[in-house]
Formats: sequence, structure tokens, C-alpha cells
Amino acid sequence: MGVSTQANGKQHDFITEDTLSERVRKAEYAVRGEIVARAGQLQKELQEGKKLPFESLVYCNIGNPQSLGQKPMTFLRQVLSLCDYPQLIEQPGIEKIFPADALSRAKEYLAACKSTGAYSESKGTALFRKEVSEAVERRDGHACNPDELFLTDGASAGVHLILRTIIRGEQDAVLTPIPQYPLYSATLALNGGTLVPYYLDEESGWQLSIDSLKKATDEARKDGKNVRALVVINPGNPCGQVLTRENQEEILQFCADEGVVLMADEVYQDNIYVQDKTWQSFKKVMRDTKTEIPLVSMHSVSKGFYGECGRRGAFMELVGLPQGVLGELGKLASISLCSNIAGQIATAIIMNPPKEGEPSHELWQQERKALLESLKKRSRMLAETLSKMEGVTINTPEGALYAMPRIRLPKKAVQEAEKISKAPDFFYCKSMLEETGIVTVPGSGFQQVKGTFHFRTTFLPQESEIGAVCERVSAFHKRFLEKYGPLEASD
Amino acid sequence: MGVSTQANGKQHDFITEDTLSERVRKAEYAVRGEIVARAGQLQKELQEGKKLPFESLVYCNIGNPQSLGQKPMTFLRQVLSLCDYPQLIEQPGIEKIFPADALSRAKEYLAACKSTGAYSESKGTALFRKEVSEAVERRDGHACNPDELFLTDGASAGVHLILRTIIRGEQDAVLTPIPQYPLYSATLALNGGTLVPYYLDEESGWQLSIDSLKKATDEARKDGKNVRALVVINPGNPCGQVLTRENQEEILQFCADEGVVLMADEVYQDNIYVQDKTWQSFKKVMRDTKTEIPLVSMHSVSKGFYGECGRRGAFMELVGLPQGVLGELGKLASISLCSNIAGQIATAIIMNPPKEGEPSHELWQQERKALLESLKKRSRMLAETLSKMEGVTINTPEGALYAMPRIRLPKKAVQEAEKISKAPDFFYCKSMLEETGIVTVPGSGFQQVKGTFHFRTTFLPQESEIGAVCERVSAFHKRFLEKYGPLEASD
Repeated sequence: MGVSTQANGKQHDFITEDTLSERVRKAEYAVRGEIVARAGQLQKELQEGKKLPFESLVYCNIGNPQSLGQKPMTFLRQVLSLCDYPQLIEQPGIEKIFPADALSRAKEYLAACKSTGAYSESKGTALFRKEVSEAVERRDGHACNPDELFLTDGASAGVHLILRTIIRGEQDAVLTPIPQYPLYSATLALNGGTLVPYYLDEESGWQLSIDSLKKATDEARKDGKNVRALVVINPGNPCGQVLTRENQEEILQFCADEGVVLMADEVYQDNIYVQDKTWQSFKKVMRDTKTEIPLVSMHSVSKGFYGECGRRGAFMELVGLPQGVLGELGKLASISLCSNIAGQIATAIIMNPPKEGEPSHELWQQERKALLESLKKRSRMLAETLSKMEGVTINTPEGALYAMPRIRLPKKAVQEAEKISKAPDFFYCKSMLEETGIVTVPGSGFQQVKGTFHFRTTFLPQESEIGAVCERVSAFHKRFLEKYGPLEASD
Repeated sequence: MGVSTQANGKQHDFITEDTLSERVRKAEYAVRGEIVARAGQLQKELQEGKKLPFESLVYCNIGNPQSLGQKPMTFLRQVLSLCDYPQLIEQPGIEKIFPADALSRAKEYLAACKSTGAYSESKGTALFRKEVSEAVERRDGHACNPDELFLTDGASAGVHLILRTIIRGEQDAVLTPIPQYPLYSATLALNGGTLVPYYLDEESGWQLSIDSLKKATDEARKDGKNVRALVVINPGNPCGQVLTRENQEEILQFCADEGVVLMADEVYQDNIYVQDKTWQSFKKVMRDTKTEIPLVSMHSVSKGFYGECGRRGAFMELVGLPQGVLGELGKLASISLCSNIAGQIATAIIMNPPKEGEPSHELWQQERKALLESLKKRSRMLAETLSKMEGVTINTPEGALYAMPRIRLPKKAVQEAEKISKAPDFFYCKSMLEETGIVTVPGSGFQQVKGTFHFRTTFLPQESEIGAVCERVSAFHKRFLEKYGPLEASD
């Protein structure tokens, strides 16, 4: 498609698809890829009155709970609303609409940031960083320096900041779990770095084996790569596993032994659905065990029970990095001026919710509990449905917002996929979309062990709807196998 | 400072300042550079009760009006507040607090985005893009396709998106005005591209001469560079000039002749303070003259009379780019998921404010008029003060939010600067900061004709304060010349 643009009758080499940055062309982001684009077309067709096999699209491709009807946390939204329109605070009778702690919190925040419409320091408003640091100290039982915190427009912006800074070119490599959240592969591609895959073990519930880390590192080094960082997503995305404390200790030791920076993506830290495991931050384990490595820990307002994706609020803590590196990161952040202030406020609030004795404490706890219980219930329903489907196996999610079932596909389906030059699980997900309106992401978008197929789905449709979604998936699967099957013993 | 981090007793090559991305190290951003960092220290010292020659810092380094007390636009904040806390809309008696059009607007926006906490399409919520496109059509009298609009986290994010996509490496060059807003030099450095300077002519009020564009282009090409884009900032930052229609036509013809993409930074389009010039968008002039080139036009909620910097809201219109390029840009945007929804809402509102006949129309117009008149008045006061200072000349700003006086500096001051290996105008601005608490940006941070010195200051301190600021600057300047002077005839 290397056609030049026609400018005033002259043939010119303006910008074309073929003369763009190679790095941008190579970057892929399946969570918002071709299947989502097709879903958009189908939605349009529905709106235009076209008859399709379903009445509405169900977006299970992305952890976007509020788009599926999840209610926001009341206190968080009250404070945001007051900060955006401070005249409200002085309105007579306002204490009948807003609880006293929302009013006082808003006043305090406005004094700190002056206005939600003013730029803050590039790393974020000092008070918000202080509140986050105190919360991290309570969480971990170890000191947290607010100067080592950066508030960012979503955790993605933090990942961009870090990889942009530590990747110099192809020789610099980052150990990334497979299956992986494509933010990492895409950002590595954009910065011209190398992704070194290490495989999570599906058989053992997607656990992380140090042997596979070591093997991947050794091979990359033999290849002349400089292995600079290790990405660990805990709880896992897309697989939903929660690491054991023992495993975390081994990972830290690995980083110390190998001289590798740990990038701990901990955005699902509030999403745990099992009794026998508790989530601990890598920062806590690192301090407990007196390991000393450079550690980047990320958290976000997009997930958890708050689900404020569209707010673009997040923080990252940078521990054990030289001052000069922090300075360079600060400079890089300043080129985008600052993250949005409402996102900063939301970040401060999820880390510092109403305390016991404050008027909003009970409601916050109620909303939190109800939401987490519902997520757990929905994850169980979905996992059960999937596990009953022929040729499908699933590790019931321990945390996060996703299920990642493995699907065996009949030969004929694999051949159909080959005909359109697509991965077999892409073909499966595309068929599911066309027949049911349910939007999922093929395992190939996250990478996977060769010859295995998966798809990722959130369990975020509301309780009133997830039953119907499960039925639609299961009926589709049956039809799919009828059409392309049967499965062979080896599949 | 190439010290390795000590990890568990072993000397490791973790990340150090010397092993970071060269591109990041090279990027500079003076608007938030060393002088601002020093201001932060001084502020801390004041808070700790230390006696300094001033009682408070005055941040004139950055266009951040609400941090200096500018009131936000009421309607905009009302809609944001309602969207953030939708329960308010149903509150009995709420129509006594919020006007009917704010309530109906909030309902309409919530129906479109579902929640300010939900991700939108990567390019932005369809309704907000539609409202922007209709406003652009009203503004220009030419069609605007909402599919060619991207809503971004501030205009900076748009610039990052574009340059990341069109720059492949050092051979790709972008024509950039000098003095320039350092966003462009920094983003070019981050993407490994080449900045080709073209000089604005200070003598003629910072006008843009096509000859200087052609000269710069020819030289860059002789040097083997591929000149891909031209950045024009209109109204100008940091110089405040407004281009004539004739000049705009010539610039478009230049782009068509030379096969260069035009990046029109038009974020100050509402900040015009002169009677004899009207601002027109490059899109309008391009359509009027039937020129056909790829054009990127940017606008933002951060400036104008709304000044919502911390909101991080903006849009860019991409005209005449091949579909494949738009697709790649869309994919790149999707890697960061979407821009923040409150910023998208603010963008829709500044482009589609309350209409005549709607309850909030009059207040919007009043607030707008008062603010723009006040900005004009303050720009005049500051320019007058500066023009009276010995050795200082200034082009009175026609638009934007800045004055960029030229300062002649005595030899002894230049020598003092050399001693600390800094630019002479850095030394001047640093001295001003230490003595007055006023924070400005040295001309060297924007680049300038060799041997000339400038500084950039906003005229954003409130009306009640700008008089005092002017006096402090003028008194400082006098002392500075007494200390390091006199100026020589040649200075």
C-alpha cells in the first residue's frame, strides 16, 4: 500500500504506511485488535436495524467493569465531584447530600492541588504522593519514600516511562511471562527492545518456575542480549494465578543473582478470590528478606473493586534505583507535564479510603465486600461453565479479572484458520463473536506454548447477565464442534 | 556517576545513569528544568520558615493559570461534577444548584460514555468526537470527519503519537521554529529524529519567512536528511505572534511543494489580543485554497480562557493522511487504552459551549469575555514594564500566554555564567528567581539566534498581583545591571 499522497497534482513522498516507524508497525495490541474492530462494525449494524444472531455485544475482551454496569465507589465519586465543582462545598444544605468526610476530604485535596484544572508537579501532587506512601507503609509494614512514587495516567504510562528509559536498543531484553499482557510486548516493540519469553506452567496452575527464568536468561545471554528487567504480573494477567510467598522470594533472589530489575505489575492486588493464598507485594517480600534489587511496583485505579479505568489513575513505586536514574525518569515525566489530577485524586482515595469512625467507612466496606464477593461468584460460574465444555480445561482464576481456558480445536477448524492466515484460536474467537456477540481475545494475542490454543475472557458481565453469557458460550462451543469436529484423541 | 548498584554484596550492572537510553538522556525540557527544581527547594525553605528576599514564589514559567487563581468556567465544571457523581442528577431540588442545561448535558454525556470510569474507544467516545467535529465545521466552514479526530491526554500526547509514528531514526527530520516550545525538541530526541531549526524573525515581530524555511530544508536535504514534517505554532509559543492569512497560505504551498506534513499546534487559538488580526485554522486556509497536504491540527483544553491544564484534555484532527497511517496511529493510541474521560468531556464542552437561548449561555460568555479582557490587559502591563527596562526590547504579544523579551546582558554577567557553564540568560533567570521568587524560563531553553538572550514569562499572575510582579522584575533588573553592568553600546 505504498501509494504516495497526491499533493496538488505532484507525486510526493509524504507519509505512507510503508514509510512509518518500523517499531510502530511491529507493535501489536490484541486486546483492542481486529476482533474488537469487527465488534464495532457489528454494533453499528445492530444500531442500523440489521438482523444478527444476537441482540447486543458483550465486551469480555477487556477489564472495563463500569462499561458493563459496575457501580463506582460512592465516596470516591463524591470527592471527585466536589473537587471538580468546589462551589458545591459552600452550598447551603450540602451536608444533606454529601457526607462530612467527603466534604472535608475535598477541601483538603483542593488546598493541596489548588484546582483539578491546574498542572501539578510532574510526579504528582505532594499530598497525594504522601497519602499513597503512608498506605504503602501500612500495607507492607516497611517505609515508603514519597519521592520514589510517580503518579501516572494509568499503569500503562508507567510501563512506557520505564521501558523507554531502560531500553537502548535491540540488545536490551526484558524477561516477559508467556502468556503475557500485550502491553509489554507492544511497549518493548515501540522502544526497539527484545522480549525474552519465559513460559508459565499451565499444568501447575500457571506457576512461575525459576528454572524456566534461568533457562530463558541464559539463552538470551548466549544470544548476546543484555537482560535488563523481569516482568512479573501478580495476580496474573491473563491467567489469574497468585504467586506463593516462596515463589516471590525465589524470584527476588533470581533478580539479585542475575542483576535484573524487577518490574512488578501488581494492579490486581485487591482482586483475590481464594482463601488459601494471600497477596503480598514484592516490596514487602523484598524488605522482609533484606534482598536489595531495583524494583518497580505498579498499581492502578482501573481494576480492584473500584474499576475506574477511564480515570487513568495509577502510581508506581521505584525502589533501589540510583538518584540519577530517578532524575532521568522525572525529566521524562515532565515532558508530558503531569498526569491528570482527577486520576491522582482517585489514586489517593483507593489507597486511603474512609477510616473506621468516619461517616463513609461503612458504605465503602459494604460496597467493597459486595463487589469482591460478586466477582468471585462470577469467576466461579464462568470457570464451571468452561470446564464442562468438551475439550476445554481451565485453571480456576485465583485473582485478577480473567479466565484463560485452554481449548482443543478440531483439525477442520485449524484448516479453516489456515485458509484465512489466522491463528486457530483467532478463528474460534471470531466465530464466537459472529454467532453470539461475545467479544474475547484469542490466546495467540498473548502468546502461548506452540500448538496450544486459548482465549481470554473477563468475568465482568453483571450477575443478572453472566448466566446467559455462559449459556451462549457453551451453546456456541457445541455448535462449533458439531460444525468442525469431532475432536481427535490427540487434540 | 556510573556506579553499579550493590545487590546482596555482589557488584551488578543493574540500571545506572550511564546505561540508560541515550535518547532519554539527550531529551531536555527547560519549562520544567533546573530553575523550576530550584524554585521547589526555595518553596520548601520558605515553608520551613527560612528568611528569603521574598515571601512567595510566583510561577511564571508555565502556562498554568488555575494554579495562579484563575477561576474555571462554571458550566464546564458543573457538567464534570454531575458526570462524576450521577446520583446528584436525581437529587430532589438539584435544579436549584445546577442549571437545566448542565443537567441535560451531563445526562447526555453519561449515556454516551456510560461512566467517566469506563474506558472509551481508543480515539475517544464517539459522541465527544462528533461534537468536536461539528464545532470544527462551524469554526472553519468546511467538513470535519469525526473518524479523523483523536482525543488525547493533552496536546503533548498527540505530539508524542505523531512523532513516534513518523520518525524512523536520525535521517528523519522535522522543521521546528526557533525559538521553539521544547516539547518538540524533547519528543524528537526521544524518538531519535533530527530537529531542523528555522528561525523566526524577531525584528519583524517573530514572523515566519518562507525563505528561512526553504533554506533550512535545502541544507537538511544536502545533509542527507528526509524532511518529513513542519511544526508551526500559531499563535506562537513562546513568542506570542499571530500569523497572517497570507503567511499561512505560503506555508501550505511550501508543504505542498516540498512534500512535508504540516503539524499545526493551534492550542492558543482562543488567545488573541489584537484587533487587526484574526486567527484562522490551517485547516480552513487549506480548504479555502484547495491545497492538499497531510495536516495535523492540535487543540487543547489547557489554554484559551478555560485553562484546564490538569485535566489533560485535547484533540487532534488528521486530514489527508492515508487510511493505513490512520490505522497505525489508532493502534498506537490503543496501547495506552484511551485518554481520560473527564478530559474528553472538557474537550467536547470547550468546542460546544452552551448555545444562545440555553440557561448557561450568558454566564459562559461573560466569563469568557472577562477572562480574555483581563489577559489582554495583563499582557499589556507586562509588555510595557519590560519595554521600559534598560537594554530590553519586546514584541508585544499578539496572542498566547507569554512574553519573550530580548535582554542585553553586561559582559560581567556573561562571564559569571561561563564560570558555572550556563547560558547567560539562565544566569539571569536564576538570579531573578533567587532575588524575587519569580520563576521564568531562559531563552536558551527554547533555543535562539546565537549571541541573543531572552527569557519567557507568562502574564498569568492575577490582576491584583501582576502590578507587584512587574515592579519586582523591574527592580531586580536595575539591581542586576548595577551589579554586573554597565551595558556597552554593542550589547
